[in-house]
Amino acid sequence: MSRYGNRVARLRTLLEEQRLDALIVTSLTHLHYLTGFTGSNGLAVVTRNAVYFLTDSRYRAQAARQVRTAQRLFTHHPLLTGMAEHHCLSRCRRAGFESHVMTYQQYRLLRKSFPRKLFVPTSGFVEKLLLVKDDAELASMRKAMRISDQVYADLLTILRPGMRENEVAAEISYRQRRLGAEGDAFLPIVASGDRGALPHARASEKILRRGEMVTLDFGATVDGYHSDLTRTVALGHVTRRGREIYSVVLKAQLAALDAARAGMPARDLDAVARRIIVDAGYGDGFSHSLGHGLGLHIHERPRVSALSNDTLAAGSVITIEPGIYIPGWGGVRIEDDILLSATGNTVLTSAPKDLVVL
Amino acid sequence: MSRYGNRVARLRTLLEEQRLDALIVTSLTHLHYLTGFTGSNGLAVVTRNAVYFLTDSRYRAQAARQVRTAQRLFTHHPLLTGMAEHHCLSRCRRAGFESHVMTYQQYRLLRKSFPRKLFVPTSGFVEKLLLVKDDAELASMRKAMRISDQVYADLLTILRPGMRENEVAAEISYRQRRLGAEGDAFLPIVASGDRGALPHARASEKILRRGEMVTLDFGATVDGYHSDLTRTVALGHVTRRGREIYSVVLKAQLAALDAARAGMPARDLDAVARRIIVDAGYGDGFSHSLGHGLGLHIHERPRVSALSNDTLAAGSVITIEPGIYIPGWGGVRIEDDILLSATGNTVLTSAPKDLVVL
Repeated sequence: MSRYGNRVARLRTLLEEQRLDALIVTSLTHLHYLTGFTGSNGLAVVTRNAVYFLTDSRYRAQAARQVRTAQRLFTHHPLLTGMAEHHCLSRCRRAGFESHVMTYQQYRLLRKSFPRKLFVPTSGFVEKLLLVKDDAELASMRKAMRISDQVYADLLTILRPGMRENEVAAEISYRQRRLGAEGDAFLPIVASGDRGALPHARASEKILRRGEMVTLDFGATVDGYHSDLTRTVALGHVTRRGREIYSVVLKAQLAALDAARAGMPARDLDAVARRIIVDAGYGDGFSHSLGHGLGLHIHERPRVSALSNDTLAAGSVITIEPGIYIPGWGGVRIEDDILLSATGNTVLTSAPKDLVVL
Repeated sequence: MSRYGNRVARLRTLLEEQRLDALIVTSLTHLHYLTGFTGSNGLAVVTRNAVYFLTDSRYRAQAARQVRTAQRLFTHHPLLTGMAEHHCLSRCRRAGFESHVMTYQQYRLLRKSFPRKLFVPTSGFVEKLLLVKDDAELASMRKAMRISDQVYADLLTILRPGMRENEVAAEISYRQRRLGAEGDAFLPIVASGDRGALPHARASEKILRRGEMVTLDFGATVDGYHSDLTRTVALGHVTRRGREIYSVVLKAQLAALDAARAGMPARDLDAVARRIIVDAGYGDGFSHSLGHGLGLHIHERPRVSALSNDTLAAGSVITIEPGIYIPGWGGVRIEDDILLSATGNTVLTSAPKDLVVL
């Protein structure tokens, strides 16, 4: 069975469990996963025995090339109207839709286009399939991670005081693209000095200065799949405080890498790293969760946080990214991507982690 | 009155016309426009006499810096639940929400959080404000356009047969960033040879060859605002057919630039360019609309197409981008961004348009 056929078969099992005759897939990411289509306008209807793929006529050539395992349909109307035009739900009574993706306006249009059908809000169906990566997905992700690793190695040779954060970001994006990435997984984070205290700081006009630590958080996209890598380096020299905070974060990160395995409650993994940071007296500084699932989405299941109810599954790829943030001083974060198995995990990113002073 | 105060005042006029006591703004782009906030999680509630801004605690520092004209509120809950926690609708009976942005799931949560309120689906309220650019917006857009113009000039010195399309895309992104762009307005389109027949082709692994035409369509982002520039160049030599098609597209584009002015029905402007292409015998090859509004969104009102009911307004920025696409052969598109006024328009992009053979 083809990659896409296999995914659709797994989805149908979920539909049957929920007594749904069909799922209307409007997330473009999920459409990509289920059909191979990468355009910007399209939807799929997966019924018990058919897969309909709908787009507009701009995508005729691209759909013919990419979508081989679904019936390709075209419409000049909004896609949800096109579904009616092509009778995509003709044998369905209860159809699920992605209620966390479909807008209220689209929902009204759907209801208007099919006044007699029963529509059931769902969320997390395709996300459940995404939890376990197949070989093709892992190959794309490994490629993305190799690219980010290489770019980090390059950065160590070019980073220097006097550069602007957004110059560094431009180098990251450019080098990832040159190495074969389709683009950035997200806008690179380059946070130097006290800006390092903002976990989500985008690169700014700020100039890197001697004595600062710089957090670099970036990723590449390959075949729609992502890498996500963070390293923190020091410029010129590092203070005692910087060195201590770095060693606490690294210890927490290594402990989590050591502990992570399928079958474990995700919150227990968060606790492994958090305990070390709390015990070192920096608990208030670790203001986010330990990690997250990674794949076609930058953030996907499982949640790896103190509040998560997820259990880690074999075949999931997750990030392990503890950090300590001190307002007015700065921050340190170290992040790798790992593949979980029943006996442990494989660390997929390989950039070095000893504290570097540039 | 501040820039944001002014925008909120204009929005309130629209709310009053629709007898709404409030608008719940969940589009992050619109949130940026109304409050200045650029983070990835937030919403605003604009009532007749207050503006509430809600986000989570990660954005405490950023919100304090960016959001000066709204009451800043923070929540650990989903934002729509946080609205109830902070009593944002306490004096409102009829509240509008952005039904083309809010998901069905969010809508259910909103209803659950405020069981006694009346929620009215709206769309296009903030979009209506975006139609007319103020000076600050135009300054950002002009900066983005100067960056794209400069990068096109650079490309003319580096483009050569043997480069891959995605190498060219990497150069575009890098150079825009180095010139001060926050990032790309969209993934650059680099479509060479027969790929030029796909109006939305992303850059691929394909190698540029002598005798091909290459369509370059890219833009920069500055302060969240976009430029959008397309040029088509020839490599090595150009066929008679290529030269003819180029001259038809250029003639159509210049005619539209000549005709565009505020007060004109947008479809009449589309017709000016389309007539020239149809008369030259290439009508089937011009498979998209003439242009679109441009600003915080890459595509916004007005629609500039044969089916548009919009009338062009003074202060709108639109693209003028006719093209001809021939399956199996390739395509030509030429695009500028213009600012409309009552007497005509100002062309904001200035990259040269004579056919270049590199």
